[in-house]
Amino acid sequence: MLDPHRLSIHQVTLLPQCTTPQFVDALARNGVGCTSLWRDKVREFGVGKTARLVADSGIALSGYCWGGLITSPDRAEAAAARDDVRRALDEAAEVKAPCLVFVAGGVDPRDKNIADARARALDGVAELIPHARSVGVKLALEPLHPMICATRSVLSTIKLANAWCDRLAAEDIVGIAVDTYAVWWDPDLEAEIARAGRRICSFHVSDWLPDTQDLRLDRGMMGDGVIDLSALRGMVERAGYDGYVEVEIFSQRNWWTKDPDEVITVIKDRAQTAT
Amino acid sequence: MLDPHRLSIHQVTLLPQCTTPQFVDALARNGVGCTSLWRDKVREFGVGKTARLVADSGIALSGYCWGGLITSPDRAEAAAARDDVRRALDEAAEVKAPCLVFVAGGVDPRDKNIADARARALDGVAELIPHARSVGVKLALEPLHPMICATRSVLSTIKLANAWCDRLAAEDIVGIAVDTYAVWWDPDLEAEIARAGRRICSFHVSDWLPDTQDLRLDRGMMGDGVIDLSALRGMVERAGYDGYVEVEIFSQRNWWTKDPDEVITVIKDRAQTAT
Repeated sequence: MLDPHRLSIHQVTLLPQCTTPQFVDALARNGVGCTSLWRDKVREFGVGKTARLVADSGIALSGYCWGGLITSPDRAEAAAARDDVRRALDEAAEVKAPCLVFVAGGVDPRDKNIADARARALDGVAELIPHARSVGVKLALEPLHPMICATRSVLSTIKLANAWCDRLAAEDIVGIAVDTYAVWWDPDLEAEIARAGRRICSFHVSDWLPDTQDLRLDRGMMGDGVIDLSALRGMVERAGYDGYVEVEIFSQRNWWTKDPDEVITVIKDRAQTAT
Repeated sequence: MLDPHRLSIHQVTLLPQCTTPQFVDALARNGVGCTSLWRDKVREFGVGKTARLVADSGIALSGYCWGGLITSPDRAEAAAARDDVRRALDEAAEVKAPCLVFVAGGVDPRDKNIADARARALDGVAELIPHARSVGVKLALEPLHPMICATRSVLSTIKLANAWCDRLAAEDIVGIAVDTYAVWWDPDLEAEIARAGRRICSFHVSDWLPDTQDLRLDRGMMGDGVIDLSALRGMVERAGYDGYVEVEIFSQRNWWTKDPDEVITVIKDRAQTAT
């Protein structure tokens, strides 16, 4: 039974249905007190306007999503990508989000070298740390599912995120985002979550549907899949995490087609019964 | 540059285009000396007839694919599934395949307990060992991609396969099948392949396409994706593997629609240039 005050609903969960003002309104009228903002939507409405809207609504922020893709083997491309992450950090600071979800980037078909891509990502994060500190926004390293390793993230496991954090030695400003959908299958999950401990600064939930149709846009509502979400929440809480539980559901064929109030009502119910 | 004598083409690579006799003919007329058979196709044509056909052709077998799915939490279902694996072992022995590719099974939505599913799979393999020994067919434990963990295999990494092999202590009859498509993303890949050593009894190649459209049926031809296949082949060879290199491509939208001779010609070329 999740404390309702810990519920956060990620903006992407209602991505096609709502503009940013419509989304903030929907949360407010349904009594949801926290969200994580989706960068494209924020920029579409305007960063300053979003900052004022959220402040006026009294809704808290659990994160800003996302920045990254810094693994290019082309130096100029990689530098431009890091500059874009710095802008994302600035935006996160302006809307007063505590962290920026960091998505490493994939494997370039030009060099097909996953070890080098990982090394470049780690070096790139190190270069971003001073800027993150200067604006006071944590970089939340998010391991993503191995099925999107080629295109989105060579950071595929919590074990690797822990190894990167060991190397970076910057616990004040670099943390780990644990997303149930990305990591539920990992045989090392419990041990690596325990090892992550207080590094965990963000916790995202959705469920894995047995009949998954798409590599990115077919996540399930909590309770509709095979993940034991309350067991997984127990692991992060035993590691010391007591922050928001962010519901983040990309669902082209189902939840993205439904009425926002209906979606939020189901989420509030499942947060109690299946999270 | 792969020694052409080590090339094996898996029957599934031409699954919809060829009956079993047509497939064996296609290999023979293109000078391919080894295959791994697909169980459904073998049973469709008849196990005894397939055994004679393959023996008469002079084509070697690198494996028989597949048996498993033994993770059910229902005891009767799990027992029936193990019996089916025993039949698959018998069939593999009859066609004179050296190993049966073993696919563990997924997570049952009824219990949502991946740790228990893994424990049941390991116990089930232990129960199958006497039968495998009696017919002289190795159980090749195949870690499959985490994206099919829910439905096909809770054995998601070579590390876990090594842990199972440590527990089973049956190196004469239980080995590991390494499939590039399933494991290429793994940060522990090189270390766990080295640890597997002589356990590796089967090596499957295909490539990961950046624009992958399907969780099972959209594998790429060697060279068309982001996997450094020759580096990966180097790892298994340094571990001591010097057997066949099996090309196993499930490709609904591309290679399954093409003429068998064209597919085999491309495979022979890519085995030289991109494997």
